[in-house]
Amino acid sequence: MYSLTVCDHIMIAHSFHGEEFGPAQRLHGATYAVECEFRAAKLDDLQLLIDIGLAKTVLRQILETVDYYNLDDLAPFKGINTTTEYMAFYLHGKIAEACKDGRLGPGAKNVTSIKMLLREAPTAWAAFEGPLS
Amino acid sequence: MYSLTVCDHIMIAHSFHGEEFGPAQRLHGATYAVECEFRAAKLDDLQLLIDIGLAKTVLRQILETVDYYNLDDLAPFKGINTTTEYMAFYLHGKIAEACKDGRLGPGAKNVTSIKMLLREAPTAWAAFEGPLS
Amino acid sequence: MYSLTVCDHIMIAHSFHGEEFGPAQRLHGATYAVECEFRAAKLDDLQLLIDIGLAKTVLRQILETVDYYNLDDLAPFKGINTTTEYMAFYLHGKIAEACKDGRLGPGAKNVTSIKMLLREAPTAWAAFEGPLS
Amino acid sequence: MYSLTVCDHIMIAHSFHGEEFGPAQRLHGATYAVECEFRAAKLDDLQLLIDIGLAKTVLRQILETVDYYNLDDLAPFKGINTTTEYMAFYLHGKIAEACKDGRLGPGAKNVTSIKMLLREAPTAWAAFEGPLS
Amino acid sequence: MYSLTVCDHIMIAHSFHGEEFGPAQRLHGATYAVECEFRAAKLDDLQLLIDIGLAKTVLRQILETVDYYNLDDLAPFKGINTTTEYMAFYLHGKIAEACKDGRLGPGAKNVTSIKMLLREAPTAWAAFEGPLS
Amino acid sequence: MYSLTVCDHIMIAHSFHGEEFGPAQRLHGATYAVECEFRAAKLDDLQLLIDIGLAKTVLRQILETVDYYNLDDLAPFKGINTTTEYMAFYLHGKIAEACKDGRLGPGAKNVTSIKMLLREAPTAWAAFEGPLS
Repeated sequence: MYSLTVCDHIMIAHSFHGEEFGPAQRLHGATYAVECEFRAAKLDDLQLLIDIGLAKTVLRQILETVDYYNLDDLAPFKGINTTTEYMAFYLHGKIAEACKDGRLGPGAKNVTSIKMLLREAPTAWAAFEGPLS
Repeated sequence: MYSLTVCDHIMIAHSFHGEEFGPAQRLHGATYAVECEFRAAKLDDLQLLIDIGLAKTVLRQILETVDYYNLDDLAPFKGINTTTEYMAFYLHGKIAEACKDGRLGPGAKNVTSIKMLLREAPTAWAAFEGPLS
Repeated sequence: MYSLTVCDHIMIAHSFHGEEFGPAQRLHGATYAVECEFRAAKLDDLQLLIDIGLAKTVLRQILETVDYYNLDDLAPFKGINTTTEYMAFYLHGKIAEACKDGRLGPGAKNVTSIKMLLREAPTAWAAFEGPLS
Repeated sequence: MYSLTVCDHIMIAHSFHGEEFGPAQRLHGATYAVECEFRAAKLDDLQLLIDIGLAKTVLRQILETVDYYNLDDLAPFKGINTTTEYMAFYLHGKIAEACKDGRLGPGAKNVTSIKMLLREAPTAWAAFEGPLS
Repeated sequence: MYSLTVCDHIMIAHSFHGEEFGPAQRLHGATYAVECEFRAAKLDDLQLLIDIGLAKTVLRQILETVDYYNLDDLAPFKGINTTTEYMAFYLHGKIAEACKDGRLGPGAKNVTSIKMLLREAPTAWAAFEGPLS
Repeated sequence: MYSLTVCDHIMIAHSFHGEEFGPAQRLHGATYAVECEFRAAKLDDLQLLIDIGLAKTVLRQILETVDYYNLDDLAPFKGINTTTEYMAFYLHGKIAEACKDGRLGPGAKNVTSIKMLLREAPTAWAAFEGPLS
């Protein structure tokens, strides 16, 4: 199994609902260092899993929809705690869509699964990985 | 599949038995940078896999039993080479117990497996991962 | 010259005023990975520049005043853009005070300067360093 | 499942064929930070998955065949784009051979799979993982 | 003293002349992870040392002149060993020019020195720092 | 001013004397990730500050005298707390000697100062820097 990972980051504000969150119930923020891993059983004829430049471009387009925003204000997150694990799931869905609708090029047809990992701090990170249905 | 990782570190002394270890047969030591990854197929209603603060607290409690010790002197390790891979296995067992006995909160009931990774140096690390039986 | 560095991190929200900031004019946030470096020409009799545990405790106390907050709402920052370089300056002032008023222990009397570095992202960071007047 | 990872790096030149590569069609180069992970279901009697020193030595021997070379000039890569994902596959094959022919010691008989990861830049890396047939 | 650092990277080929270089006399390559640090005694009215976005853009423009090239083929490096320390010096000169001719914006007038650091591998890096004359 | 840094690591045991050290009074250990920085105002005719390979070899020779040892048992450290800051000072002295007695090659005559940095954990490190007298 091959894998290819490209990185980027976003800087967002948000707050959490639930006593469990303690001080994180207040409006605060995070830099999420994003690592997006594509997996495939084979490479294309050029020996590429996916074009790195294209992967970075498409990942950036997806991240632009949340980067430099207060997530509490965005429609997709109304009534949802935008925890790191949830945001990994959410962004995984967006990049999986891009894989399936051709935005990531013809090589992406070999991609069988994607792992989206978000580092919220030097000592904590979360990820969501799943197959391309 | 979701995952959540929290980090900490310990500073221990130990020695190894067996010619294969060369100079590591002498009493020496290590900083183990610890990365503990919890995996679950779903999040709770708050969109949490597990509470990060609680996970760090419980991990620290477990690490306290070995942190700043000469492992050669501790009962659980009598007659055992405390290699990095063994210590990953040992600590995995302790955090798995905490998951099962409720110390990691109700969300931990969703955890299906744990990976315990210990970095002994910038160029070498070991891990043990396994399901929660 | 000796130096000793201890680390921590904070997660804050804020917004910037000025067209130059582009999308960062919106309310967003950041994780600041904090590296606080103390410099001294000599160590104490125990061969310590400063006690690491105490340094981490005092640094955490200072960071608590801004951690998990929207900086736009805090009194010290009214009318000020809380850029990374500014926050490094601000936090430098707070730790320098702690050094001078004895909170960092008697060894801190040898500290001649401090560097406060804040990493806002994997690709950008800022610092303020200055002598203890 | 246990895993053990050892690291090294190589510095190579190469060029790519195919318009998709853009400026990377020109002769350029890369430092590949290499992370070689061995997986096994059990440790040997010394609590070792594999001897770290031996693993580093054998990995270095394999890397010597490509380190400080222009890959375009080497026989194994004639007519092949030596992308990061391809090189991970290629080096995986070589270390898997060493595992099977005894060069990694008797403990290596427990190794069931290997992951070879190559970091080409702070923001991109690729890997190949596969079982030992 | 304030400092602000922005990062990028380049992937180049080159060879060295001189027996001292051993196998590095062969055509090989490197990824240089670039860290460009600007220093200034004061910030502007917006609390900026320099605009991070602009700094990254100008740094990228400068790096484009060497990125994805065989340095042996470029005019500025004829008869010169393009060691990491030399390349740090060379790129320092280019960014210092940009600082002085206004490309980095009006805030750059406060910049008193620049440090250009190039990481060639996880275990080796070089830098050149100097004042803006 | 040019600088060149090479890295290595050591794994040692030790204990500290003094109530201030708390649990670190017990025999424990550390991995010290070592970063040795050489500074010089000019490069040699080959554009080298110092030969990286030679620097790594000599640094390793120096580190061998403490690597895989219990520092409490070594003559140079009798009655001395081998704190990270002290060990940085001690190793700085050894590499400075090597610089002055020619072991680091003729290029080392340009070296004006050295910084020896030891990372004891992901969240703490210490250094000693000083001129070559």
